[in-house]
Formats: sequence, C-alpha cells, structure tokens
Amino acid sequence: MKQISAPSKKRLVTLSRILSQIISQQNSSLKRITSVEISTITGWSEATIRRDISLLELHSGKSNGYNIEELRNSILEQLNIKSAVSEKINCCIVGLGKTGAAFLQKDIFSNSPFEIVAGFDSNENKIELLQSDFPLYLTSKMESVIKTNKIKYAILVVSDDVAQIFAERLAAYGIIGIVNYTRQILTLPANIKIENANPVFALTNLSNSL
Amino acid sequence: MKQISAPSKKRLVTLSRILSQIISQQNSSLKRITSVEISTITGWSEATIRRDISLLELHSGKSNGYNIEELRNSILEQLNIKSAVSEKINCCIVGLGKTGAAFLQKDIFSNSPFEIVAGFDSNENKIELLQSDFPLYLTSKMESVIKTNKIKYAILVVSDDVAQIFAERLAAYGIIGIVNYTRQILTLPANIKIENANPVFALTNLSNSL
Repeated sequence: MKQISAPSKKRLVTLSRILSQIISQQNSSLKRITSVEISTITGWSEATIRRDISLLELHSGKSNGYNIEELRNSILEQLNIKSAVSEKINCCIVGLGKTGAAFLQKDIFSNSPFEIVAGFDSNENKIELLQSDFPLYLTSKMESVIKTNKIKYAILVVSDDVAQIFAERLAAYGIIGIVNYTRQILTLPANIKIENANPVFALTNLSNSL
Repeated sequence: MKQISAPSKKRLVTLSRILSQIISQQNSSLKRITSVEISTITGWSEATIRRDISLLELHSGKSNGYNIEELRNSILEQLNIKSAVSEKINCCIVGLGKTGAAFLQKDIFSNSPFEIVAGFDSNENKIELLQSDFPLYLTSKMESVIKTNKIKYAILVVSDDVAQIFAERLAAYGIIGIVNYTRQILTLPANIKIENANPVFALTNLSNSL
C-alpha cells in the first residue's frame, strides 16, 4: 500500500463516515458516488478527493463514479479504522426554541458518529416539558455538564442577540467547534471552528455561487 | 475608480448584503470585520476578499479589520447597487415537519434579501393548522406556485427517503438552488446548486476541519 499522509488519512476517515451514512439511509437508491458529489458534500476539491482515493487499492474502476460500499469498505480495511468509526463524538444543543427543539427528534443524528448527550436552555419550563432521549439542563449547568461528558461540539440555536455571549462561554468550557444556526456572526479564537448553517447564510452562499 | 470584474462585483454585492445583515442585527456590538471573518462566512479565500475590497476607495485603514458600515456604504455607492440590495429573491420551504415549521417564525428571514413566499407539505392538516405570514400549499401545487411566483430557491426539509424525488421535482419546476436540511445526498444537474445545512453534515465538516 502507498504511504498515506495524516491529512489524507483524516479526510478518508471523514469520507468513510459520510459513505456509511449514505449506506445506512433508508431507501437509499444511491449505489455510486462521483468526486463531484463528494466535493459538494465535503467542500474539498475534486483533485484532492481523487488523489486521496488513488492511495487506496480499489478493484473496480471509477468510470461512472465510485461504488459507495466498496469505497467505504476499502477505507475501513486499508486504514484499519474500524474503531474510529464506531467511536461516538459527544455533542450538545444550546437553545431549545422552535428550531432547537426540532433537533430533539430521535432520527436526526442516528447512524452518525455524533451523539447528542445534552440540551441546554435558560427556561426551566422548557427543560421540564420537552421530551428528549438525552437529558436537558439549565444553561447554568453548561460548564459542569460539558466538562463531565467531554462534549466536543455544540449546536448553537439561541437567539441572535445572545449568540456571541454563549459562543464565548462554550469556548471557555472546552468546546472545539460550533454549528451556528443563529444569524449572528461569531468572533472566536482561531482554534474554535465554526460552521454556519443558518438558512439566510446558506441562501447567501447559494445566490453567490451561481 | 479601478475597473471591477464581473465576479468581483458579484462577490462585493453579496458582501454588502452580509454587512447589511450584520448592521441590522439587534444589539450587534460588531463594528469592524476582518478578512478572516469574511472568509469564514463566505468561504472565499482571504486573498480574494482583500483583492476585491482593494478595488474600492476606502477612507480609513484596515489595520484592525474593516469598518463594517463604511465598507457596506462604499460598495453600495461605488457599485451603484442600491436597487440590487433592496430587490427581494423569492424562496420557498418544502416540508413542514418540526424543522420546517420552525422556519415559519417571523424573524428568521427578516432584513435579508430573501423572502419566503410559499411553504409546501403533503399533509393537508398541516397546511390548515400551521400559522405563517406567507401562504402554505399542498405539494401538488408546487409547480404552479413556483412558476407563478418566480421562486428561485427552495429550503428542503422533507424526510430523507423522499428528498431526492422532491429535489428533482423542484429542479424541473425551475428552482436554481436548494438548501438541503435533509441527510440525503442529492444528485442533481450541475446547474442546480446545493448547500448542505443538515446538522450531521455540519458536524462532519467541523470534525474534519480540526
């Protein structure tokens, strides 16, 4: 097998997770995937994707995209990363308004490496009334719950005017990445990664990319 | 004024919209913005951003980032794009489950160039019971409503197993971009743009980028 660099390995591990998600999708009719499609999902360039995959020993050709199951299994076998794939990454939801509460549905994070282990809100009634498979806490408990559960990522769904304050608290408590569903632009140290998933941001990106 | 290419102009128009959003945010304490922060929001490289902005005539320096209001006003004045900014882009929401219904809240799209003009669901009870500022329709009305209202973008929040079918229908009816909140990977002609904003995708991107 060819030598695989650390960044390539990391991307291939992520790719194997994405492929596992596709395979586990109910009624998924998708059997093959192209580097263009992988690029759309991951944001990596097609050249990078093709170079990474060329490091694997694949039996079938890639004339019409890669066979999803073969590609996933090749990554798992050749990088010997079975354990990394089954290892869960602890996450939390901060803010249980309408959008945040929608994320409490059971199937949203199933068959993914991410496990939501806590939800937070400053309103005690919401904590008591909302139904969830994981415990809900007052935001005053954030620091201890995040540290005890070694929570790595937070999904931020608070109102825009308090988003920056909450992001700073999460960073101080050890969170290393935030999925930002608010419209507030977050300013955080460079070691805290941010993914903006608010619909207005997504639409702005769409309208620009056309 | 220096000559400004079409792609630069398009990016600056998008940037002016983003800056207008920031300015309109209640309690926004953000007065300056750096090219790093603009890069995080837009996905453009810092070099591209700095080059685009260098085409404008800015009075104050950029030692500690750009003054948000001055930068926005410079773009509006020097590119003469006031009308483009106030022009609304028609969008729709497809799927009114818990997550889709959360997008019916009034303030989510306010002060943005995007106006939600229709929501769709296949369940007649939801259409009748959900409260919304814009009309809700059965999905059987999608084609006529999209064409009549010249709807450009769709926010897709249906269940994963029907996401691909709905995406293909939207493309056939003239939609040019989809914000995909489902976990299904969509396969569409290259001229239809897709932004994946599902929390599992966002977390996957975060965990890869670290």
